[in-house]
Amino acid sequence: MSELHLLSPGGFRASGVKAGIKASGRPDVGLLISDQPATAAAVFTANLFVAAPVIVGREHISSGKLRGVVVNAGNANACTGKRGEKDARTMCDLAAKAIGCTATEMLPSSTGIIGHLLPMEKVAAGIAAAALELGTTAEHALAFMDAILTTDLKRKNAAAVVKIGREKIIIAGVCKGSGMIGPRLSPPQATMLAYLTTDALVPPPLLRKMMWTACNDSFNAVTVDDHASTNDTACLLASGASGVKLDSSVAREKFAAALGEVCQSLAYQIAADGEGATKVVKIVVTRATTTAAARAIARTIANSPLVKCAMHGNDPNWGRIVSAAGYAGAPFDPDRSSLKLQGITVFRSGQPVKFDPEKTSQLMQTTEVVAELNCGLGQATATVWTCDLSKEYVTINADYHT
Amino acid sequence: MSELHLLSPGGFRASGVKAGIKASGRPDVGLLISDQPATAAAVFTANLFVAAPVIVGREHISSGKLRGVVVNAGNANACTGKRGEKDARTMCDLAAKAIGCTATEMLPSSTGIIGHLLPMEKVAAGIAAAALELGTTAEHALAFMDAILTTDLKRKNAAAVVKIGREKIIIAGVCKGSGMIGPRLSPPQATMLAYLTTDALVPPPLLRKMMWTACNDSFNAVTVDDHASTNDTACLLASGASGVKLDSSVAREKFAAALGEVCQSLAYQIAADGEGATKVVKIVVTRATTTAAARAIARTIANSPLVKCAMHGNDPNWGRIVSAAGYAGAPFDPDRSSLKLQGITVFRSGQPVKFDPEKTSQLMQTTEVVAELNCGLGQATATVWTCDLSKEYVTINADYHT
Repeated sequence: MSELHLLSPGGFRASGVKAGIKASGRPDVGLLISDQPATAAAVFTANLFVAAPVIVGREHISSGKLRGVVVNAGNANACTGKRGEKDARTMCDLAAKAIGCTATEMLPSSTGIIGHLLPMEKVAAGIAAAALELGTTAEHALAFMDAILTTDLKRKNAAAVVKIGREKIIIAGVCKGSGMIGPRLSPPQATMLAYLTTDALVPPPLLRKMMWTACNDSFNAVTVDDHASTNDTACLLASGASGVKLDSSVAREKFAAALGEVCQSLAYQIAADGEGATKVVKIVVTRATTTAAARAIARTIANSPLVKCAMHGNDPNWGRIVSAAGYAGAPFDPDRSSLKLQGITVFRSGQPVKFDPEKTSQLMQTTEVVAELNCGLGQATATVWTCDLSKEYVTINADYHT
Repeated sequence: MSELHLLSPGGFRASGVKAGIKASGRPDVGLLISDQPATAAAVFTANLFVAAPVIVGREHISSGKLRGVVVNAGNANACTGKRGEKDARTMCDLAAKAIGCTATEMLPSSTGIIGHLLPMEKVAAGIAAAALELGTTAEHALAFMDAILTTDLKRKNAAAVVKIGREKIIIAGVCKGSGMIGPRLSPPQATMLAYLTTDALVPPPLLRKMMWTACNDSFNAVTVDDHASTNDTACLLASGASGVKLDSSVAREKFAAALGEVCQSLAYQIAADGEGATKVVKIVVTRATTTAAARAIARTIANSPLVKCAMHGNDPNWGRIVSAAGYAGAPFDPDRSSLKLQGITVFRSGQPVKFDPEKTSQLMQTTEVVAELNCGLGQATATVWTCDLSKEYVTINADYHT
């Protein structure tokens, strides 16, 4: 963890406890609380199949104010019908009573296996214990972070300081996610979970707008297996504890840029910790006709199992990359396009370029491979982060039995 | 091979020879020739990045008449620029001279690695040798079939007999394809290659229409890795040698049904021989709002790596299936949907159903697993065939170096 953590912005407390929901016995219930009602913005999965906590979360975020987040791992409370929805509401009730607010001021989240009812006795005991553990230290931030993990191998966190005149505000965040990662977040709509805090004073509409932009260029630009979860949620809480307002356009731009950086760092960490991943693959598409076209091409390349296997094998198989661009459903002209792999031009103007495959392969034996496709058509650019496809991914997902 | 083969319909000859294009030394140049100009219909990849033989093939099919097909394996002649296009035309020239027709009466195809120029001396010698080997027996059909294979482990062929009154016509076909399988064929537009023969007398517009319908419900409904190739081609040649015309609507319906069955059998064989596959996974979507919606839902489920890994592990993880349906971009309502796995209802009306996971898992340990999702919305149905995702797929595609 960097020096800054989720609780560095003033006005927040957090905790994480072991409630016995995860078979592993690891921490699985967490609370993130704002001392005062915080301005809040959240985006949720665009999957038509939404988990119970997302149904309830959408309701509770509508006011633009929250006191906090109650989350469990080990069970997604998805595909659980009316009973599941009731359980998500009960989670909010219990957390609200424990900290002294109303249930609608809590955002519920769940992550884990789909199709099983929550063990509510364990959840209730976990929430009660978590309420007693709340605190403001780095250890408390760590405990919350651990409580939201599932197949993640690494903790994921990021933070930024924004100087507004002589004053400063902090933006911090944590997230989880390793498999079933293909977020399609839509406002006010990832089992990617991401929670961000800031001590800035921001009105709800502005916070919502900046959060959406930041999520679209980060969480919506990361894919492990392109499988959009039923539970994906990203939520930003602004406590206002710094007393610093975003009064000027410069201040708003600085905040938006820093929020974007924090979200992109978290998204990158998800790709790096993708199930079975040995490296991050960064697909950069330039000079496309539109941003949507650039994103579609980048995402199609990132999702090709053939491209992902080539990356795993350190194989500069550029044919797989350019052929994926051709079926993205976006304007593309091979004769005007060129491709660089780790800075080496391997394809230009519809034709192969002589390059040293051995050297290029060696350059690919690292933790981040960059493929840059220049479409030669327009001015739009997009970046998508993914990971390689390894045998370990198959092991994890063929053996993870229901 | 069934008793019927590619050359059972009268009027055709074929051959396959070893030209040294494949590193393995296996057969790699094939000819399929109609003794007389045949009515022909072909569909090609909808990838914007089209290989040289597809560019040339589209031109040559426009007349609706062909004398035959010249094909090589081991090199896709894709991403090879103007030189590649010239080479594809030269293949047609050489084949045409050898059999006595014009170059525009030949459809060229190539399959194999992308981005390398064809070794034209080997190709030329192969075409010359193949022309000398042409014949009408089952062995000749077999030789042609072997010459089009790449990573395929199995030969793929199908045939049907259609009785029209007292007469009969035959439809036969062969195909190849194992990886980079996600055909999006569009008219007059798979490195799926499929060649079909019939001795029926069919005018070009009717043949084209029936071929498109048959391909859409077969090759366009199979996916291994959803990666649409630059070379995908399916071509049907009608020699007319039987003298039997499709004069009545009943005759046309019978022919269309038989053609559909032959194409579906070939498509099924591609899924069964998908790279690393241990089983076919058949996704059936019923009661969707439209056929396009049903197809989109089925294809999204079929392409989820999480679903494919669960199938590999014989894991009745229905949550992955229904959650994939939710991000297909088509109308879907969990509360109205139900799911059967190998005939066992595992999910109904938005809620889990109690079932025996051990028994269901045992039922999944077979060569074909059927998942049937009833959307409860409309009357439209679609079927998509795919295969499971195994470690062997990763081995094949991470180690197949350029």
